[in-house]
Amino acid sequence: MAAAVMRRGPAGWWRWHRRVAAMVCSRAMASKTPVGFIGLGNMGNPMAKNLLKHGYPVIAYDVFPEACKEFQDLGAQVTDSPADVAERADRIITMLPSSPNAKEVYTGANGILKKVKKGSLLIDSSTIDPAVSKELAKAVEKMGAVFMDAPVSGGVGAARAGNLTFMVGGVEQEFDAAKELLTCMGSNVVYCGAVGTGQAAKICNNMLLAISMIGTAEAMNLGIRLGLDPKLLAKILNMSSGRCWSSDTYNPVPGVMEGVPSANNYQGGFGTTLMAKDLGLAQISATNTMTPVPLGSQAHQIYRMMCAKGYALKDFSAVFQFLREEETL
Amino acid sequence: MAAAVMRRGPAGWWRWHRRVAAMVCSRAMASKTPVGFIGLGNMGNPMAKNLLKHGYPVIAYDVFPEACKEFQDLGAQVTDSPADVAERADRIITMLPSSPNAKEVYTGANGILKKVKKGSLLIDSSTIDPAVSKELAKAVEKMGAVFMDAPVSGGVGAARAGNLTFMVGGVEQEFDAAKELLTCMGSNVVYCGAVGTGQAAKICNNMLLAISMIGTAEAMNLGIRLGLDPKLLAKILNMSSGRCWSSDTYNPVPGVMEGVPSANNYQGGFGTTLMAKDLGLAQISATNTMTPVPLGSQAHQIYRMMCAKGYALKDFSAVFQFLREEETL
Amino acid sequence: MAAAVMRRGPAGWWRWHRRVAAMVCSRAMASKTPVGFIGLGNMGNPMAKNLLKHGYPVIAYDVFPEACKEFQDLGAQVTDSPADVAERADRIITMLPSSPNAKEVYTGANGILKKVKKGSLLIDSSTIDPAVSKELAKAVEKMGAVFMDAPVSGGVGAARAGNLTFMVGGVEQEFDAAKELLTCMGSNVVYCGAVGTGQAAKICNNMLLAISMIGTAEAMNLGIRLGLDPKLLAKILNMSSGRCWSSDTYNPVPGVMEGVPSANNYQGGFGTTLMAKDLGLAQISATNTMTPVPLGSQAHQIYRMMCAKGYALKDFSAVFQFLREEETL
Amino acid sequence: MAAAVMRRGPAGWWRWHRRVAAMVCSRAMASKTPVGFIGLGNMGNPMAKNLLKHGYPVIAYDVFPEACKEFQDLGAQVTDSPADVAERADRIITMLPSSPNAKEVYTGANGILKKVKKGSLLIDSSTIDPAVSKELAKAVEKMGAVFMDAPVSGGVGAARAGNLTFMVGGVEQEFDAAKELLTCMGSNVVYCGAVGTGQAAKICNNMLLAISMIGTAEAMNLGIRLGLDPKLLAKILNMSSGRCWSSDTYNPVPGVMEGVPSANNYQGGFGTTLMAKDLGLAQISATNTMTPVPLGSQAHQIYRMMCAKGYALKDFSAVFQFLREEETL
Repeated sequence: MAAAVMRRGPAGWWRWHRRVAAMVCSRAMASKTPVGFIGLGNMGNPMAKNLLKHGYPVIAYDVFPEACKEFQDLGAQVTDSPADVAERADRIITMLPSSPNAKEVYTGANGILKKVKKGSLLIDSSTIDPAVSKELAKAVEKMGAVFMDAPVSGGVGAARAGNLTFMVGGVEQEFDAAKELLTCMGSNVVYCGAVGTGQAAKICNNMLLAISMIGTAEAMNLGIRLGLDPKLLAKILNMSSGRCWSSDTYNPVPGVMEGVPSANNYQGGFGTTLMAKDLGLAQISATNTMTPVPLGSQAHQIYRMMCAKGYALKDFSAVFQFLREEETL
Repeated sequence: MAAAVMRRGPAGWWRWHRRVAAMVCSRAMASKTPVGFIGLGNMGNPMAKNLLKHGYPVIAYDVFPEACKEFQDLGAQVTDSPADVAERADRIITMLPSSPNAKEVYTGANGILKKVKKGSLLIDSSTIDPAVSKELAKAVEKMGAVFMDAPVSGGVGAARAGNLTFMVGGVEQEFDAAKELLTCMGSNVVYCGAVGTGQAAKICNNMLLAISMIGTAEAMNLGIRLGLDPKLLAKILNMSSGRCWSSDTYNPVPGVMEGVPSANNYQGGFGTTLMAKDLGLAQISATNTMTPVPLGSQAHQIYRMMCAKGYALKDFSAVFQFLREEETL
Repeated sequence: MAAAVMRRGPAGWWRWHRRVAAMVCSRAMASKTPVGFIGLGNMGNPMAKNLLKHGYPVIAYDVFPEACKEFQDLGAQVTDSPADVAERADRIITMLPSSPNAKEVYTGANGILKKVKKGSLLIDSSTIDPAVSKELAKAVEKMGAVFMDAPVSGGVGAARAGNLTFMVGGVEQEFDAAKELLTCMGSNVVYCGAVGTGQAAKICNNMLLAISMIGTAEAMNLGIRLGLDPKLLAKILNMSSGRCWSSDTYNPVPGVMEGVPSANNYQGGFGTTLMAKDLGLAQISATNTMTPVPLGSQAHQIYRMMCAKGYALKDFSAVFQFLREEETL
Repeated sequence: MAAAVMRRGPAGWWRWHRRVAAMVCSRAMASKTPVGFIGLGNMGNPMAKNLLKHGYPVIAYDVFPEACKEFQDLGAQVTDSPADVAERADRIITMLPSSPNAKEVYTGANGILKKVKKGSLLIDSSTIDPAVSKELAKAVEKMGAVFMDAPVSGGVGAARAGNLTFMVGGVEQEFDAAKELLTCMGSNVVYCGAVGTGQAAKICNNMLLAISMIGTAEAMNLGIRLGLDPKLLAKILNMSSGRCWSSDTYNPVPGVMEGVPSANNYQGGFGTTLMAKDLGLAQISATNTMTPVPLGSQAHQIYRMMCAKGYALKDFSAVFQFLREEETL
């Protein structure tokens, strides 16, 4: 290991030094090399904490300094830029809100690629356009490093509990190395294929989810107006061919199930604005690949209209409320 | 019973004769009063046969005499009109292709209501507009008889095997009487509420089914074009929130599952033209109750376009094929 | 003509007589035979007044007695039922809110058909399902009278000004007789073909109108967000292939045109709830004729959602406001 | 003006010089400085020829050498790359099929920007994503040159006849300079605002056009099935609020108008695949600006499905044929 440290120069040394110090207080840490983590927002924060819990020294960066503060207190090393992270860690996880952010963090003026070390493993868990993932992968590859896209399924709760699902795209022989880190944060790590297929799997799933959720809301609403009891209708759908996750696990009609956002005025859960964002990605991917997605496209428009009508921060199952007639004439 | 036979004339006699003969070989038949069956098409034919198998004498009628021939050979009594059936049976099941047919059979010039006996139980298993079911129920009620709507889920195969699902609407205290007959033809008989709710449950389920099927086809198609392996994508969807009956039990992509229509060039199954019909009923019910069904409505249009483009007789999962690009420019 | 008169019996003779008399002294009330008018609502009220202004004695009926009061003061004869109107007038105009109302007025217990005279001319200006118009026409014909559907285009303002457009369906040789009355209330009376085609023309026009209005709202909104000045964009569209009545005569964007509802907070004009009703009729006609109307169907859903979100009484061009983002996150 | 010239350096001077010279002898070729033209496809070919006809020496480039051959014969100077064009001309028009092509031509390894002279005027007539136009404008500006987007409306026929419409975005004080060239190729040159608004105007118009065309096809189809004569229905729509360019100038129903693609089996005109492309741009712009475009989005999907079903090369009014039922069951 000393050889490895030497090969890597001062940053390596420093890391080695930290490790030695850590050996004193943490049984596992000594054996683990640091992991960079960029993007400490709602999702990134608990994810990075789970890495710490599993004994990985974390080299942290976020564009908002206050987001880093907490990690400093937890013993993480906070840096000034993505480039600095790349200088000090050869495995980096990024968790960013959008394609432009991801481009900036990787290829910007102080981006990872300015100082990335050959052989580094860069894992992007952001949900972005798969075409952008491919672009980033090419740029990373030119620097002799490895890029994998690994978007997650599951919200803040799953991130805290460490049971996210990761959908991973990239070179297959690097998958095990990625999995080692990702299993600290998720209970399910699925290999999907070449770079970009992680994103593809995620946006396809979420597009189908949005469609079935709106479909469930429409069917439940129609049934109720035709005189059916909502619980009974849900039961019938769930034992028939209309059954779907939105009907049997996350029913959007208040009173049908316990412990879901519809039972709590659509608070918590997966925000309408986030669903609209994912549907936008699906839309762009479909446009670029000339794939007809008539319902996916309509679902996107409906969530977009909901955002314009005050539902942005409610759970996406609030589409039931949106479709329900609220007024009498 | 002899009196009844006399009252009914030669046909009655003949039936009585058959019954006597049957007593020899069938333990149960003697105790069973005849059941009328109107509409011996693709679905009605095996359903009526299952009644016979369970020992019910059947009084049959179909607008096409050739459809009755087979039943005559099986020992059923064939009549000349729905009114005749009503004269000879006080429990009648109807299985008809559309709302106008149902109106004709019940309220037409030679319809059931011309000769229906007080206290008769009339069960309509057709899939029709719930508003029409309610109209028929009112007309039946005026004659002192009972009407229940009991549309089925499951196709010709399920009808033959006797494991249809019946969704039943009508007065609750009559449900047991209906169930006695329906269990001869189905494995699942669900009470849904007042008259019309059987239809409502069915069209809500089928609308959600159509939406999830198209959504599954779109998501699978998009994923494939983005580089995902179809089997892997199906697996990912099925363990995630996109999961639905169309993805996990009836996947529309050839090669993903065995034993489904997509594995057999979309032959068999539930025809596109039948799905378009059910979506038309959902559409009309939604329009009449002023319920917004944006995706249900779009699904209807897509199946309507498919009918116009040669998919009418293919299974409704062929929407995958319809959406898939077939040509290169 | 005499032969035709004879064939029609007394009522026919009477009409012929009236025509001759009218030729002698066309402006005097004395020379005009009374016209029945059923349905004195927002539209019927000014329409019936225009008949009075043109010197026609009016035999009035409305289900709400207070709606008749004003007409009594104006010298019209008020009756107790549609049947009474039919007893006293052999030309009747009906203006009713929906298909069930029209059925009731024509074929109900005290309906027109109870006392209609042979040879009477019954003109229905309601906007209803063309299939219902055809049903009514059949029933009317059986009584030896003539039925025409003549829905109007133009709102309350046009009704007051007497410049409605009538789209008329029915036997062509009766068109002139209908036109004589309709020109008192409208500036444009168009013969469309067999019974039901008046309705068909109206709902096709309104469906296309709804589609272009939403399309105009979407295009204007998108252009504005992409940095275009709304007036300039409207000008460009109007000299290009995007031009339509909604863009050049009734632009939905506040500030682009004067004297339209968008210039007045979407007050007045053609209410969203009425547009939703007409789109419902288009939807039902399309479903019944198995015609794919993907955008018409979506337009219906959008106006339905608007009704549920507080836009019911605003002009239908308020769809611009509905689609516009109102909130920032 | 001299100050402005000085600020721009030699190329600016040269333009000023050219303008003075042009004033003396505007029709003679000698007095005109050369214009670069990149992209000599279906549209670029006749556009460049019109520049030649107006006496402008043309410096030509196309990625397919054979496309240049004809221009060599016409006296144009053919070059090896966009960079070469930029070296020899300080006014350049580009006419390219897509955003990636435009990026390559401007910012690629042998792109215009490699050798563009300060003060050059670069006009892009391609129809591309307005966001890409803005990106290109920034890159061009950095080199001290001026970029304008000027997409066209009108097809190959209008390009030949020199009566295209140009929608121009860019700095207003450069508009006159652009107009001088564009009027050689178009009869209508409209200033739309900042860079990107030319594209915005075009895609908004085409989105509305697509929506009204499909709407017209739906309304005509529905009317015909309800028994209306197509010509009569078109006449009624055109005098009513359903009127639009697609109904009154380019009616999609065969037999209604002469001289339009629907009268010629949908040959010629504006190809379905091109409409699908423009709708894709509208979709992407709407997604990026979070603008709900429910009908625009559905129109996109319909043209996409048509491309998949053999309509790619037919005029976009063939949507009437696509929606029309072709089969009987």
